[in-house]
Amino acid sequence: MQRFDIQQFLSMALTEDVGAGDITSDLVVPPQSTARFVFRARQSLVVAGLEIIPLIFGMIDERTRVNLDAEDGAKLDAGAKLATIEGPARALLMGERVALNLLQHLSGVATLTRTYVDAVAGTSARISDTRKTIPGLRALQKYAVKAGGGQNHRMGLDDGILIKDNHLVLAGGITAAVTAAKSQASLLMRVEVECDTLAQVDEAIMAGADIILLDNMDINTLKEAVTRAKAKNIATEASGNVTFDTVRPIAETGVDVISIGRLTHSAPAVDIGLDRE
Amino acid sequence: MQRFDIQQFLSMALTEDVGAGDITSDLVVPPQSTARFVFRARQSLVVAGLEIIPLIFGMIDERTRVNLDAEDGAKLDAGAKLATIEGPARALLMGERVALNLLQHLSGVATLTRTYVDAVAGTSARISDTRKTIPGLRALQKYAVKAGGGQNHRMGLDDGILIKDNHLVLAGGITAAVTAAKSQASLLMRVEVECDTLAQVDEAIMAGADIILLDNMDINTLKEAVTRAKAKNIATEASGNVTFDTVRPIAETGVDVISIGRLTHSAPAVDIGLDRE
Amino acid sequence: MQRFDIQQFLSMALTEDVGAGDITSDLVVPPQSTARFVFRARQSLVVAGLEIIPLIFGMIDERTRVNLDAEDGAKLDAGAKLATIEGPARALLMGERVALNLLQHLSGVATLTRTYVDAVAGTSARISDTRKTIPGLRALQKYAVKAGGGQNHRMGLDDGILIKDNHLVLAGGITAAVTAAKSQASLLMRVEVECDTLAQVDEAIMAGADIILLDNMDINTLKEAVTRAKAKNIATEASGNVTFDTVRPIAETGVDVISIGRLTHSAPAVDIGLDRE
Amino acid sequence: MQRFDIQQFLSMALTEDVGAGDITSDLVVPPQSTARFVFRARQSLVVAGLEIIPLIFGMIDERTRVNLDAEDGAKLDAGAKLATIEGPARALLMGERVALNLLQHLSGVATLTRTYVDAVAGTSARISDTRKTIPGLRALQKYAVKAGGGQNHRMGLDDGILIKDNHLVLAGGITAAVTAAKSQASLLMRVEVECDTLAQVDEAIMAGADIILLDNMDINTLKEAVTRAKAKNIATEASGNVTFDTVRPIAETGVDVISIGRLTHSAPAVDIGLDRE
Amino acid sequence: MQRFDIQQFLSMALTEDVGAGDITSDLVVPPQSTARFVFRARQSLVVAGLEIIPLIFGMIDERTRVNLDAEDGAKLDAGAKLATIEGPARALLMGERVALNLLQHLSGVATLTRTYVDAVAGTSARISDTRKTIPGLRALQKYAVKAGGGQNHRMGLDDGILIKDNHLVLAGGITAAVTAAKSQASLLMRVEVECDTLAQVDEAIMAGADIILLDNMDINTLKEAVTRAKAKNIATEASGNVTFDTVRPIAETGVDVISIGRLTHSAPAVDIGLDRE
Amino acid sequence: MQRFDIQQFLSMALTEDVGAGDITSDLVVPPQSTARFVFRARQSLVVAGLEIIPLIFGMIDERTRVNLDAEDGAKLDAGAKLATIEGPARALLMGERVALNLLQHLSGVATLTRTYVDAVAGTSARISDTRKTIPGLRALQKYAVKAGGGQNHRMGLDDGILIKDNHLVLAGGITAAVTAAKSQASLLMRVEVECDTLAQVDEAIMAGADIILLDNMDINTLKEAVTRAKAKNIATEASGNVTFDTVRPIAETGVDVISIGRLTHSAPAVDIGLDRE
Repeated sequence: MQRFDIQQFLSMALTEDVGAGDITSDLVVPPQSTARFVFRARQSLVVAGLEIIPLIFGMIDERTRVNLDAEDGAKLDAGAKLATIEGPARALLMGERVALNLLQHLSGVATLTRTYVDAVAGTSARISDTRKTIPGLRALQKYAVKAGGGQNHRMGLDDGILIKDNHLVLAGGITAAVTAAKSQASLLMRVEVECDTLAQVDEAIMAGADIILLDNMDINTLKEAVTRAKAKNIATEASGNVTFDTVRPIAETGVDVISIGRLTHSAPAVDIGLDRE
Repeated sequence: MQRFDIQQFLSMALTEDVGAGDITSDLVVPPQSTARFVFRARQSLVVAGLEIIPLIFGMIDERTRVNLDAEDGAKLDAGAKLATIEGPARALLMGERVALNLLQHLSGVATLTRTYVDAVAGTSARISDTRKTIPGLRALQKYAVKAGGGQNHRMGLDDGILIKDNHLVLAGGITAAVTAAKSQASLLMRVEVECDTLAQVDEAIMAGADIILLDNMDINTLKEAVTRAKAKNIATEASGNVTFDTVRPIAETGVDVISIGRLTHSAPAVDIGLDRE
Repeated sequence: MQRFDIQQFLSMALTEDVGAGDITSDLVVPPQSTARFVFRARQSLVVAGLEIIPLIFGMIDERTRVNLDAEDGAKLDAGAKLATIEGPARALLMGERVALNLLQHLSGVATLTRTYVDAVAGTSARISDTRKTIPGLRALQKYAVKAGGGQNHRMGLDDGILIKDNHLVLAGGITAAVTAAKSQASLLMRVEVECDTLAQVDEAIMAGADIILLDNMDINTLKEAVTRAKAKNIATEASGNVTFDTVRPIAETGVDVISIGRLTHSAPAVDIGLDRE
Repeated sequence: MQRFDIQQFLSMALTEDVGAGDITSDLVVPPQSTARFVFRARQSLVVAGLEIIPLIFGMIDERTRVNLDAEDGAKLDAGAKLATIEGPARALLMGERVALNLLQHLSGVATLTRTYVDAVAGTSARISDTRKTIPGLRALQKYAVKAGGGQNHRMGLDDGILIKDNHLVLAGGITAAVTAAKSQASLLMRVEVECDTLAQVDEAIMAGADIILLDNMDINTLKEAVTRAKAKNIATEASGNVTFDTVRPIAETGVDVISIGRLTHSAPAVDIGLDRE
Repeated sequence: MQRFDIQQFLSMALTEDVGAGDITSDLVVPPQSTARFVFRARQSLVVAGLEIIPLIFGMIDERTRVNLDAEDGAKLDAGAKLATIEGPARALLMGERVALNLLQHLSGVATLTRTYVDAVAGTSARISDTRKTIPGLRALQKYAVKAGGGQNHRMGLDDGILIKDNHLVLAGGITAAVTAAKSQASLLMRVEVECDTLAQVDEAIMAGADIILLDNMDINTLKEAVTRAKAKNIATEASGNVTFDTVRPIAETGVDVISIGRLTHSAPAVDIGLDRE
Repeated sequence: MQRFDIQQFLSMALTEDVGAGDITSDLVVPPQSTARFVFRARQSLVVAGLEIIPLIFGMIDERTRVNLDAEDGAKLDAGAKLATIEGPARALLMGERVALNLLQHLSGVATLTRTYVDAVAGTSARISDTRKTIPGLRALQKYAVKAGGGQNHRMGLDDGILIKDNHLVLAGGITAAVTAAKSQASLLMRVEVECDTLAQVDEAIMAGADIILLDNMDINTLKEAVTRAKAKNIATEASGNVTFDTVRPIAETGVDVISIGRLTHSAPAVDIGLDRE
């Protein structure tokens, strides 16, 4: 996870949920009560985000103790223990919802990613995320994608060059755009360009693109595009409404990377409970 | 939307996505280029969050102009225009992804909410969200639920009293918990308590609960519980893995409110595009 | 006290008082000097805010040690010890003024509250604060009111419904306002409405108000208003320039709550000193 | 007022009072309603803080219009208009309490200050505040003291050298402390030292103090101390539980400055109302 | 300049210099005074940072007007006008020092950069900065390097892969390090590795490095290293205590980039004055 | 160093350099690797800022251990050890550049200051900094000046009164400005005024200035000005393009303070390395 922001993120999340205080617990739970709860999977899932549990409860009350019973990236069956927490009851109740909301969401992303990773097993294609993340959650969601066996694409607009369709129109076409990028870009970066047709692929190859993003192509066209790029030692990436049904045939075209927005923008939460042991 | 935080949220979201700058546009799009793009629905949806569009692009460049072509809460067909933006091309490309990520997510929440609201049409039940939201997004997600025709439950632990199962164990049972809450709570607040069985419902009624949350009951038990509560003029709420298939029978028991976590924790993004006009 | 802001508040207070550094101590107190000081009441008072002492000095220098010799809410005589601090002399001098300013103010609020609470002893009326607090101090002042034996009204506009005179004009009268509020408000909240006359009280009762705020009524009118509300099982609150002379007769009308702005907007500081032991 | 913080302070104050939103107005006041209100003195007072009114309402809604009908520092009779505001009704109701809380407090400080300033009229003594302010309010309270005709002492520990009793013990007495300060301090600063006895005054004069703070002396001793200091061209300041009864005799000793903590730590709020015009 | 931080940076800089206020101007300059000042070069220089002038004075007082008389990157003679400002005199005096400090520093960086750029004119080498910047100033210093005709290396550790000597020891040598990086790194990035000897250069070429950083080599060795790398189509960069005397011979080896720490860590301020016109 | 900001400053500096993470180390250094490095002077220097080393590495990873082998203010020869750090290798590599950038800069300031301090040894003049600092670094640079044997002038516009040339024009001349300042200023502050000619010096003396800043005078004029001021017991300060060649003659005029902008705005970094032990 990102090194310098996670404390601030969790603090924001607690403020959002707790606000001026947990008035229910203050009314009904004696201040000196202690308790012991267990986070438990209520369905089969790939877990991600376990390390946030000690961070959240540590921010609320230093006397809480957390024991992690699993590791991020592990595939767990329904009923498996994820973690045990122990400490002042009011602190446990105060952090419960934030911890569950995050764990269920991040494990949801990891679980969905794993289904795609498993679907392409045996091919050379790697499953990647996109910038289609939920605002504020990018670092955590991308962490969860890795926990699910996927790989990360750019973190943001500042750490990679990817010339997309809207750039192309404004830049005057593939040749102009790729040439401009290649001549001025940092030596440390490669230039990737989006192509929708084989003609564009040919133009991108000629212009000196380092990577080609093949968007929304049918399987045959995709296969041909990959072939042409490989002949010139150029890497390829496929994208565009990739679903569980289409991911395997896409992988079998020989494409290097398949990037999938729904890993992060549409992953349903998985069911995790917090119960008294 | 929340009055005092939205600017800060969007600024964070832009920082997250843009970081030190959009290196691709800086390389390939001339600084003086202008453009005109249209946000367009690519599927049938209920829109939510349109007002963020002028906020985002205004933060990037004051010269951008936004025209909204729809209103939050409207049901749109595939192909419908949501908004038109015009201005410096680099500014439009810089804000594109953040705007789309938010619109697609919030409209996803509104769209899912509407399907549940429509499913209970004609009954007296109202569809409500929960605190099972994605951290950082609560105010926006709850806004989207309202845009979809739902209603909002508590914003956080500080603006409502809801005694849940874990409280009950720590408080020494329903009678003790409800009595403690009623005697000390602000006059301005009602006391709601979660019950899993009819025996608990009876105890809650005796203890003076103002609202009863009926969690994970089968339809017949739920119906009986609602009947007993109504006889004492006590409001009822149903919760627990409510799905599209079960929501109508639940509503027909006469329960006042049905609260559904998946409205916010598992809403898939809807498809919205940004294209050159 | 509020869980997530107190550190930030104290840090702000230290920055405000210390700025770039304590130039006097830096000039005249040797860096290695240590000292031991005692916080001592210089008048009879009810103490509030003791826990801020270790927080303040801990933020300045981790080597300071604080021993609390009293508890918030205790009534102390002149001369009583409140706390003992020990540590690097420069750290003690740096935090002295902020600690005293807060302790003297919060204990001032608690002490004033207690005089009102004692004045209504034996009646069923409870003494409450209002939103008439000093900006930035609300959570602390409301904590001090509780330490003085009072109870808290709303924390802010977001955690309770109270329809006041200015709302009524804009909403079209009591019936319209109460009806609107009751039909749309969260189930978890009650609706309180301000009334200045018996006619308004009758209208509020008819409209279904849950609580009636009786503002600035003379004792006879107040008594009659309370009687009419009680007959319908509706709670009542009295407000409006309540003074030490009028609070007892008001309480004897049978009103449930008496809210008093001066507890927080006009409480004089009590005298507390910090002396070498 | 302080130039770089007032926006942040008011934003904090609004967040404190409004939180997630004004649920009452949202329920009962139509969104399109507009209104016109008048801030009016309900007692004789010296006004301070008027400029916060346009700042507060401007932060809530840019469509509000404020007209100031008085100036800070003016002495007003009961019934006098302070300001008129006009705009969306919900915005006016949202800012009402924060605006009143601040105006009533700051005008309270200015009003109290003026009574002391008037009490010493005709003498050469000036009335000054201290660092005994309410945390978070220092800049505003000191502004109000000036509006009331007083002058400001140090803003904080970093902008003036004042050696107090607790420093003296730790520094090894007046001679050591004053000598240390004089030899190392910035040329731009004078050295002030607290004295409780005439012997200390003599020692301070010998040591080269630039100003002497005469703390808690009886009138005769104070007079003698002032005489001795003046003979050496050294300025003097009196402090220590100065009340309305003692301030005039203190001023008549010829002391240059009288500093009074209660101007800021114990000023009662004055009564200002906000009514429909 | 960086889009989302400059306001915050300048606000910090003003707070740092102004603190609670400009007490001198408040004492001696009438509040209604206006003035007109000119920023003027007092030596030959390359200017950078002009756009901060309107930002700074706009933050202090919206009534200030700034006219820029030059453009960043321009080479100016002593006596040339940079900008003219006009407005409330107190505002101009308040922002003067911060504006001058920044302009003199950034123009110092640009001026120094230009001397190196001019020194290698006619060769294919480009002059680049490093991460050896003054903390807090990186974005601005790198902007100034570009204004001086240089190019920017990495912004930070997160936007480029550069394996340095300390990495090599820990990674087990060049082959291991380069192989690890190539196999896992984002497709969008190239891998650069530092070499001190020709043997290392050969190893780096074999391992598949995309760029080789040639550190502290003598001219002959450097020349040979560049030749070997070019033969394999691999880019090269030279670094290590590059001075004005050595930069031309280094450039003539054919190296692609020469990176120079002193551009940012040791650039002396240039002399710019602010005078009444 | 400044007490309340250093953590925030270093956190900003790390964010600036590290951003989303050190991608190189993550790729090539095993997570469990540990290392031991030594900070070592590569030239003769006066060290300043050593305490930031444990702060920086402690923020990155609590398992790092730092041993300081020198003290701020010490004059070290090339080759001398400054500090030893030990811990997780990735943490050491992540903090290396920020630590070196700060140490090299602050030691550069201290080293330059010491050359001026040594140059005036034996005279009564003291070497002082100015407000000509690099934005964001003022507290640290002024700390470094003290480490080099210099003294600090004002921290900012709020902690000292210095009437400069631009004030004089706006205030209507020396007499008007000094009189205004003396009559209204805090008793705790002295009034300093800038003079360029002997006539101005005479006027400043007559007007009651406490200190005179003698700007850009030739040696003979300066000497005469100092003589006239001393005759009236008024302190003097010399400023204006003081260089290593002119500082000694200036000191020998008997002036009290010589303030030098280049100590902070133009100090070159000194060479410090971080190597494996």
